[in-house]
Order: sequence, then C-alpha cells, then structure tokens
Amino acid sequence: MISRLCFCLTLISFGVSSHAQTIHSPDRKLTLQFQLNAAGEPTYQLRFGAKPVVKPSRLAILLQGQPGFDKGFTIAKIDSSVHDDTWTPVWGEVKQIRNHYRELAVTVQQAAVQNRQLVLRFRLFDDGLGFRYEFPAQDNLKYFTVQDELTEFNLPANHKAFWIPGDYDSNEYTYSTTRLNAVNTTPIEPIQLKSAPTTVQTPLMLKADDGLYLNIHEAALVNYPAMMLNVNTQSFGLSSQLVPSATGAKAYLQTPEHTPWRTIVVADNAPAILASKLILNLNEPSKIADTGWIQPQKFVGVWWEMHVNKAAWNYSDASNLKLAGTDWAALKPNGRHGANTANVKRYIDFAAKNGLQSVLVEGWNVGWEDWAGNWKEEVFDFVTPYPDFDVSELQRYAAGKNVKLIMHHETSGSVTNYERRMDAAYRFMKAHGYDAAKTGYVGRIIPRGEHHDGQWMVNHYVHVADQMAQNRLMVDMHESVRPTGLHRTYPNWLANEAARGNEFNAWSSGNPPEHETILPFTRLMGGPMDYTPGIFQIKLEDWNPERNKDKQVHTTLAKQAALYVTMYSPLQMAADLPEAYEKHLDAFQFIKDVAVDWDDTRILAAEPGDYLTIARRAKGKDEWYLGAITDEQARTQTVKLNFLTPGRRYTATIYADGKNADWEKNPMAYQIRKVQVTSKSALKLQMAAGGGAAISFKGL
Amino acid sequence: MISRLCFCLTLISFGVSSHAQTIHSPDRKLTLQFQLNAAGEPTYQLRFGAKPVVKPSRLAILLQGQPGFDKGFTIAKIDSSVHDDTWTPVWGEVKQIRNHYRELAVTVQQAAVQNRQLVLRFRLFDDGLGFRYEFPAQDNLKYFTVQDELTEFNLPANHKAFWIPGDYDSNEYTYSTTRLNAVNTTPIEPIQLKSAPTTVQTPLMLKADDGLYLNIHEAALVNYPAMMLNVNTQSFGLSSQLVPSATGAKAYLQTPEHTPWRTIVVADNAPAILASKLILNLNEPSKIADTGWIQPQKFVGVWWEMHVNKAAWNYSDASNLKLAGTDWAALKPNGRHGANTANVKRYIDFAAKNGLQSVLVEGWNVGWEDWAGNWKEEVFDFVTPYPDFDVSELQRYAAGKNVKLIMHHETSGSVTNYERRMDAAYRFMKAHGYDAAKTGYVGRIIPRGEHHDGQWMVNHYVHVADQMAQNRLMVDMHESVRPTGLHRTYPNWLANEAARGNEFNAWSSGNPPEHETILPFTRLMGGPMDYTPGIFQIKLEDWNPERNKDKQVHTTLAKQAALYVTMYSPLQMAADLPEAYEKHLDAFQFIKDVAVDWDDTRILAAEPGDYLTIARRAKGKDEWYLGAITDEQARTQTVKLNFLTPGRRYTATIYADGKNADWEKNPMAYQIRKVQVTSKSALKLQMAAGGGAAISFKGL
Repeated sequence: MISRLCFCLTLISFGVSSHAQTIHSPDRKLTLQFQLNAAGEPTYQLRFGAKPVVKPSRLAILLQGQPGFDKGFTIAKIDSSVHDDTWTPVWGEVKQIRNHYRELAVTVQQAAVQNRQLVLRFRLFDDGLGFRYEFPAQDNLKYFTVQDELTEFNLPANHKAFWIPGDYDSNEYTYSTTRLNAVNTTPIEPIQLKSAPTTVQTPLMLKADDGLYLNIHEAALVNYPAMMLNVNTQSFGLSSQLVPSATGAKAYLQTPEHTPWRTIVVADNAPAILASKLILNLNEPSKIADTGWIQPQKFVGVWWEMHVNKAAWNYSDASNLKLAGTDWAALKPNGRHGANTANVKRYIDFAAKNGLQSVLVEGWNVGWEDWAGNWKEEVFDFVTPYPDFDVSELQRYAAGKNVKLIMHHETSGSVTNYERRMDAAYRFMKAHGYDAAKTGYVGRIIPRGEHHDGQWMVNHYVHVADQMAQNRLMVDMHESVRPTGLHRTYPNWLANEAARGNEFNAWSSGNPPEHETILPFTRLMGGPMDYTPGIFQIKLEDWNPERNKDKQVHTTLAKQAALYVTMYSPLQMAADLPEAYEKHLDAFQFIKDVAVDWDDTRILAAEPGDYLTIARRAKGKDEWYLGAITDEQARTQTVKLNFLTPGRRYTATIYADGKNADWEKNPMAYQIRKVQVTSKSALKLQMAAGGGAAISFKGL
Repeated sequence: MISRLCFCLTLISFGVSSHAQTIHSPDRKLTLQFQLNAAGEPTYQLRFGAKPVVKPSRLAILLQGQPGFDKGFTIAKIDSSVHDDTWTPVWGEVKQIRNHYRELAVTVQQAAVQNRQLVLRFRLFDDGLGFRYEFPAQDNLKYFTVQDELTEFNLPANHKAFWIPGDYDSNEYTYSTTRLNAVNTTPIEPIQLKSAPTTVQTPLMLKADDGLYLNIHEAALVNYPAMMLNVNTQSFGLSSQLVPSATGAKAYLQTPEHTPWRTIVVADNAPAILASKLILNLNEPSKIADTGWIQPQKFVGVWWEMHVNKAAWNYSDASNLKLAGTDWAALKPNGRHGANTANVKRYIDFAAKNGLQSVLVEGWNVGWEDWAGNWKEEVFDFVTPYPDFDVSELQRYAAGKNVKLIMHHETSGSVTNYERRMDAAYRFMKAHGYDAAKTGYVGRIIPRGEHHDGQWMVNHYVHVADQMAQNRLMVDMHESVRPTGLHRTYPNWLANEAARGNEFNAWSSGNPPEHETILPFTRLMGGPMDYTPGIFQIKLEDWNPERNKDKQVHTTLAKQAALYVTMYSPLQMAADLPEAYEKHLDAFQFIKDVAVDWDDTRILAAEPGDYLTIARRAKGKDEWYLGAITDEQARTQTVKLNFLTPGRRYTATIYADGKNADWEKNPMAYQIRKVQVTSKSALKLQMAAGGGAAISFKGL
C-alpha cells in the first residue's frame, strides 16, 4: 500500500518573505515549524501538543574556502506531501513496518552567493522528526568541503540525559546519567580520542520533567562523518559536532548530495521510544535483491575463553614479528592458543548438539603476537592460518555436522591493509565454506589521522557491507561507527558492536547493572548490537584465579538469558564456554529455544536506566519470548499476557532469579518453572538486584 | 665472483673512546672518517684524495615520544669488510655491474637510554659513498616513530648546484642553476605542496670549483619518506628533510629496520657521475625469480594527441559525474575522444608496421569527465571502458598484429580507491591480454593528508610493483616518488616519470633546451625515466592553431632522436602521432632501429646543463647507437669511435641538425648521411642551438 499526496507550492517569484511554514504529524500531535529569521538564517522548532520539544534552532553548514550555507537565504520553493506505505524487513523485530509521515521540503537560496541553493527536508512522523540538508546539483556548487555543521537542538529545559563522552573512535563507555547542566566528560578516561568536555555521542537519550522522552540520533549515515553533540550546560542547547578527517575538514562532497537525517524521536512514554521505527524508515530500501541467503542466527565461538584468560588469541609468545618474513610454523607454540583444530571441533560439536547455527573462531590467522597498539599497517593477511588451525579439515568437519564457521577479520585499525587484501580474503572465505564474518577495528586507524567515526571510515564500513553482499556474505562489525539503520539497506549487515559489550565485564571495571537497561534507549536505536550475552559462569575467577581476581559479570544468570530478548539482534552469541553451559543445561534451554527473528514485538515496560520488559513473537510461529531486566534495584513486576493469541493455551517456561539471588553476592541462583497460561493470564516476576527473567511461551 | 674479506673488531668493553674510524675506497682515492664527537654525536667526513668532499657532518634520527638517536653514544662494535662481486642486471645500460666497496659498520650505544643501539653502515666505493641508519631488533626498541632525520652533508664551499624546489608531491620543475648561497625557491610557483625556500629535491647535482662533481641522493627507498635537502646558504651545509605523513610524523617503523641509503657519488669528471652504478649496487637483488617475461620495449600511444589538443581523454563534455550511477553509454559523445576503437587500431597498425612492440591507450576507461583537481575518491574503476572503446575487439586486433596494448591506470591521486580495486584491475588486464600498465597519480593524494613522496605512498609504489610482478605485469609509474634504484629489485618496474617530461612543452612555458642535459645528472641517477621523447612535429600550432599558439618543443628534431640514447630507459615511447612520423620516415628510421637494452655504455662527453654525448651497444649485438645533445648553445664536437670493435667496418647513419637549424627558429631542419667507419674513425658533429645528433652504427 502506497498512498502519496503531494502539495507543491512552487514560489515563482524569489524573495518570498520568511513566513513560517508549519506541518503536523499524521496524528497531529507533533508540530514542526520552519522559518527564516531576519538574517535569512534557517530555523526550525518542534512541539509535542503544546509542549516545546525543540525551541527555535538554527540549521547551518559551513564550507571550506567559500561562504557557508548559513545565512542570507530567501525561500525559493516549498514542497509538502504525505507519505504512507508499509514495507517488510528482511529480518527484524516486527513483520511489517509502516512508514507514515508528512514531508516539508524547503528550497532556500542565497542571492549573495550566485543564487546557490540548499534544500532542507523534514519528515514528521507520529513518533518524531527527521530532517536533512540536501545539496542539489547546480552550476555554482559541484565539489565542496564541509568545514562544520551547526545544527542546533535547543532544548527547553534541563533534561535528564543518558550520555557517553564524545569520542572520535569509540563508543565503549558506561553511561552517565545527569541533568544537561552537569554534563562533564573530563573525569572519564578516554578510550581513544575524546572530544571536548561537554561533547557527547548520539544516540542521546533525554527525559524531560514534563514527561516527554526524546532520543536524538541520525539515520542513514553514508559519506559523511558521525555527529556528536555539544551540550551548552547553561542554555541546554545542543549543537552538532562532526568527527574530523585527517585534514581537519569534516566531509568532502559532490553535488547532488545530502547529509544523513538528523533524528528526534519523541514520545510521552518510554516504551514508545523503543518501539519507534523512525530511523529505519529514513533509510533506503534493501540494495540486495535476492536476500534468501541472509540468515539470522545464533552462534558460539572461540572468544570468551580468551577474555577470561583461559586461552589466547596468539599462537606463540614471540613478539615484534613482521607479517612478511616470519616463519609461523617455526614459532614455539605457547600451548594456550584457543583457535586450534581440536578445540574448534569441540565448539562445532556443541553447536550441532544444541541446534546453534554457527561457530565464530577468533585468533585463527597469523599476526596475533603483537597485533594491537602499534599503529602498524601490516598486521594480518586474513588468509594464513596458524599451524594448528586446519582450515580444510574444519571445513569438512563443520559441513558434516551442518554447522557454519564464522570468519574473523580483525584489522587492528589498519584499514588500508584490509582493503587491499579484501578481495583475497573474501575469495578465501568462499573457498572454505564461510558465509559470515565478524570484523574488528581495534586501535588507531590507518590511514593515519583518520578516525573510526569520520567520513572515510563511514564509507569504508558501507564498502565492506557492499562487498560482502556482492559475495553473498553476512557481516558483524565491531569497533565500527554506531549504526544508523543501514541494516535496512544492507540486510547482510546483521549487527555491530559500537558500544560497551559484555566482554568489558571480563577485564575492566565492568558494565554496571543498569547498563543493559540503557543500551536499548541509546546505542540500539540505530540497529542491532552483538552484545554477546549468555554468560552463565558469572564469577570469572573460576577460569583463571590469578588473572581474573574479583572479575565478574554484573548481572544474575537469569538476566543474561533475558538479554536475548531485551537486546534485539538477528545475530546472537551464546557467549560462554561449552563447559559453562554443560553445567546449566536446564537454563541453557532458553538460549537454545529463543528466536532471533520476530514477527511482533511488545515493549511491556521500560524506563531507561531502571528496567525493561519486552515480549516478542518468533518469526512464523505462535511462540513468544519475554525478557525482563532490572538495574541494581530488585523489582517485582506483574506482566499481563494479553499479547498471546486469545483462546490458546501456552506452556510458559520461566527462567527467574533464584531466592536470594543478587548480581554481586549470589548471581548464579536461578529457578525454572513451567506454568500453563492464556492471554488472560498475568505473571508476577520477581527480579533480584541486577537480575531479570526470561520466559518462553509455546502453544499447547 | 664473490670475494669478501671481513675484519671484525668487536669491542668487548663498552665505552670505547671516540677514536676516529677511517676507511678508504678500493682504489684508495676516497677516504671516509667516522667519529663520535665530545657529546657522543656520530659524525662522518669524506675526502677525495686530499680534497674535502663532505666536512664533518652529524648523523642523527629524532624519535617521537622518546629520546632521539642523536647523542650520548659510545661505540659498542666496529665491523669492517671488503665486498667485490659482479652481477647481471635483467636489463640495463651495461651487461654486468661490479659491486666493489669497503664497508664500515659501527654499532653505537646510548648508556642513558637503556643501552639502546644503532648501527651506522657505510659502504665506500671508488665512485662514492653510501650510508644508512640501521635499527637492530632489541629489547628496548620495537615499534617507534621517526620525528626527524638530521643527516648533514656539510660542503666545503659554495658549489654550483642544479636544483629544483623541495616539494612533497612533485618533481616536475625546470632546474635552476645557482651557487648554494643563491638557492631560493620562493619565486617558483609550486606544483603541489612546496617546502621551505631553501629546501631542494634530490638527486642534487653539485659542481665544485676544485673540479669535483658530486651527486647527493638516496638508494633503495622503501618504508620511509623521500629525503629533501635543506640548504644553509651561509655555511653551505645541507641537511636532510623528510616528507611528512598525514600526522606530521615522518616514518612509522618496527625493528629490525633501516633507512634508505644516503648516497654521495663523487668524481673529478662529469662522465664518471653518469657512469656510476653506486645506487644500483646499494639496492637489493631481484625479488623476481623468473624474469623471462620482462621485456624492454618501444611503444606508441594515444597520448600526445591529447596534449596537443587534437583529441581528448574524456568521452563527453558532461561534468560533475559520479562513478557509480552514471549511465556512460547515455552520455553525449564530444566527438574528440582519442581512445576510440578505430583510432587505437590506427596506432596498432603503425606499431606493427614499424616493429614497435606496444601501444599505450590513455582515456580508455570511464571517469575522465572531471577526473582531476577535486580531491575525489571515486574517480575511476579501472575496468569499465567508454562505449567507443571495444576491449575485446582491440584485444583480438592487436594480437593478430603481434602488438601488445599497454593498460593505463590513472588514479588521480586517489590511491585508496586504486588499492581497493587493484585485484579486479589486474584480473581485467590478464583477461584482456595486457602485460604492462602505465600508472598515474595526478593530484592530491587520498588518504587525504598523505603526500606522493611520504612513507605511505613510498610503500604503495612498492606494493604496486610487487603486485604487478605477482601477476607478471610490467609497470611504468608517473607522478610517483623519484626513483632510487628499486628497478634492480623489481625489474618489472621499467620506468617512472617523477620529473618534468616532454609533455610540458605542449602546454606550459616548456622545458628549456638545457633540460635534457641536466636530467641524467639528477632525476635519472635513480633510474629510468619515461620522458616520452621523439616529438618530430616540433611546432604544435599545426595540431591546434588556436589552443597551441606559440607552443613548441624546445629542441630540434635531431635532438629528439638523440634522446633515445642520452635518456636511458628500457621503455621508450615514440611519443609523436603516426601522421607526424609518416612525414619524416627517414628520420623515424632511427627510432625504429635504436635499442632499449644495452650491453655497454660509454659516456663520451658530458657537462650538466651544457652537453652530453653517449654511445651504447645494443644487447647481444655488435650495433652501437650514439646520442649527442646540447643546450641553447650550438656546439661542434668530434667523437672518436674507439668504442667500436677494432678491425670491423660499420655503416654509421648520422641524423644531424640541418644547416641553419635552431631549436626556436628552425627546429625541424635535419640531415641524414651514411658513412663507413671503423674504431679508428672520428666524426665531427655539428649541433645547432638546442640541437643534437643521433647515430646508428651497424656492422658491415
């Protein structure tokens, strides 16, 4: 169904007055007003009913070596239209997505700059606003360089904000929750190259005292740097701050071109923020015609055992090696190399036995002896296995058990090296039966001076997704730029990391219990995260008493299970070791059962930083899965099961925190019970501090 | 024959005094002295007999974030040896090359910096000195960053210098000839990113009043930036200045590593400078085992007709196109596109008829509509021909005439784009019968912030040579870093441009008549140049009266023929149009005849900036070719033919300037005469202003 009504007001005589242009969202709750001020500066404001969401705020792009797109504008043309259609994602949280908005496109023109034109395009949905700058093809603008973008989001009050520090290269921080006037990233140790003290990353989650929830991010980030937000701690104004290129300029563009969409999701309740499909709707449809080969999946992997110091990525303890010229077979093995043939077979066996589709193997290829921290270009070649990793034998063995191996391409940030070896690497994958890869970008980027979140790298990630697609390969990117809904366009791009994942619990101060209640409101707004949930051996000293002293996951075991529902991804790892799961096969049943692709999703309860309860219906089945999590506060929650098919009976298997469970003192206490329920039932869930609950509903 | 005598003085007790270490060249004419001064700073000096060549000069490398390799050294170990062997180049100016030197390797150590060690290795040949810094593998030095190199060449007097301005990206300048105290690049318009006013490029040619000739350059430039030279116009000291990376740092290194060799070729006569094989001797032997497929060759090409505005690289006059998304077949042809199938066939016919091996075609692939000057990443894809260029038909047609097509890969400086498309580009070449490519790097480099002559690009050129070699492809690089003898190591790397070639005569103030008398003493010291000689239609107005007004080549026609001998390259273009040659088939006979690979070379007369006469014996034949050129002065030169085989009679065909020939007023006047000669004969050559002579000697 596509209906499109178009109201085109072409203003033939230039120099139209700066009368405000106003549009409403389809449900008329949101109102957007565009206006040129007295200086000919474009401004916009947004209201939710009578409540101001964004006060009058400027829109401007400054250019290098020529006058900016900032002032002296008159309106040349105004187009308005309504769009309403419904589309079917290749995979996702719901079966179909309605894309319903009113659009306002204002063409503005600078008489003093050879009548140069800019289009400001707004799309107003029931759940928020997207807008972008468009640079039409025109005689006086072909190639140009963006020096700065000065988009404002002037907020009306001192909202509560859930933020991480602005960083050109990393999003792997814990969240700070403060009022806007208290934003200060100074005390936070930078992960890579941190921005100014009041600059924060998007998606930025905000809560107003008047009951509104706001999320500010961007959609369809292509050929442009990621946007950070500068916080004015006095006025509560936010303004865009783009990640720079190696030269300091922000973006090198050619008309016709446009920026990504700047997005403001707005609702008067927190669950509606999570249910928003605004960012996906602002992305382009799939560029992949035949998507039958794209498979949401669960996987295990030779991975966590390295994080818990039970094994190593590196085959030997030699150091200062060079990729070319090292005789890898001659190195003395350290005896701790995880990616050895026998160990991988053990994971393949476990996956086959438990119906998991695939096995990731990290550390399979030469170069891990001194791979990180050296800003070194030639680290990995992506095609040479260590002597103890038998590619052909594992290909044969995995195929015999109907299990796929997932390739690992760690670039160590040396992207030039990856790009020049990419063709060979993908040919190697195809030749050895791999159909998915996890990529990694740990460390400083090469080309030196570029950043993970700058224009050049943004284009690189898209290039990888595109090249993988052309080879019918799926991809999961780690340390990449935060996602912006591009998985709609490249549905083979299953997931990203681009946030602080579960592994931080293994070797840092960890992720506080609230962490997973915030991520869906922030990082996950842009797309699925490979959070690597499912750690059942919560206390990590058991794996390596000396090196993991006091290290633990900051949740209960039941909460780890719940994350498979609350942390949406079509690619979910069962991240713990097979031997950890073998000790808790009753609880592992939930991970075996839970779906990774859905026909429906209901956000039953949510408050950022506090709690989250989500139910989802498995793709093509009358099977529901529910995840409920809490922060460091124990909570009791009653869940109405009215999402179930009326009149049908279900067995609900409830994986709950045990009595006296506590994320810190008693994290592994859980209880499993089965009850019969209908859509009229309600369940009372008791969640421990840092705990949660997971429930499967299977029709009788 | 290899003889190697080794004198190893390992000084067991550290803290040896700073006694000078002195070695002599095998013929004892040159003396090198190494010494640590009172501050523990390494210094060296060089003498020719009693004459100082380089006064005491410092050797230092400064590092980023740690103490430099500059002072506080003591000597830990001294090794001295003699090396003498003879090797056979795959192609070259002579059949065999003797590599005879005395080596001094001094290991110095910094007690204050954890006993960090550095090796200073000197090789003293009869014709000069090479030395380099070596960073051995050691516990306290693995990965490190070079902030600066401070190598001094303190000259004893105010020599005459032949220089071009220091530039991070280009060597395409005319030469200035001044005393050192008058070096000033300020008035010279930069081609790309010019360095400080007293910084000049290497190879720097110098002439001392005491009769010595010096050439300062480097050998085996790999994984390090190119070296420029800062001139102290008061003291006449030169010091190294490295081309920076995008970050400003000069080189990112890992032990064990070494710098390129710094080279000082010294002689008391100019011809000996040109005969020096010191730079080749300091390069590594061929990395290519089977070299049978590497073929020195002459070629014509769809090239000059674009420079003289008779045709165009671009297929249409559209602009502001994007590589992806443009329907190239739908563009309106401009009717001037040179690389069309019919025109290429004309060149194939001409090559076949005249025994030239190959045809270069520029402008064959889509992207030339707005290819330069935009710092744009996606310009060319290297695999998509324009609609009027039929790849398969030309493959068939050329093969039928036993002619090879030479591929053209213009990157427009977007090297990331080239590297990520390289595999596909080389597969395309192999599939369509190409075995050689000309590459180009016009414009600013991407990765943005990097430079043509910085470490990253230096590695790129080597990567291209290596990847081409792995695909059995030959390569000719334009706008690359100036060569440093790497064609010994990669003999498929036939030639480079990296200087101001003949095409500047087509559209700039041109190359002055002295230009070709300087290039062999400067740019060509590092390796062959694809100068593109052989322009017979000297006045260019004939091709396009409107656009080429007053444009002409700044030589006589006879001098253009002579360049095939004086400007050594295994890859020589007959650069003019077939229709130009058809008018002068008698003179073109020399270009048809002249060899491109040689068993012997004799520098019969030479003075930089003035004149040059060289005779060479064709590979495997008793056939000699002689080229003589002069600057803007007319000259008469008597050449003794004692290089010919004694007792044998030869027909000498002499292509000389005509009576009243003059590069400016009457450049196309030439005369051809045949005489019989023996090794006892002498020929008197009369060269016009800007003229020359070419002679073939064929045995009777």
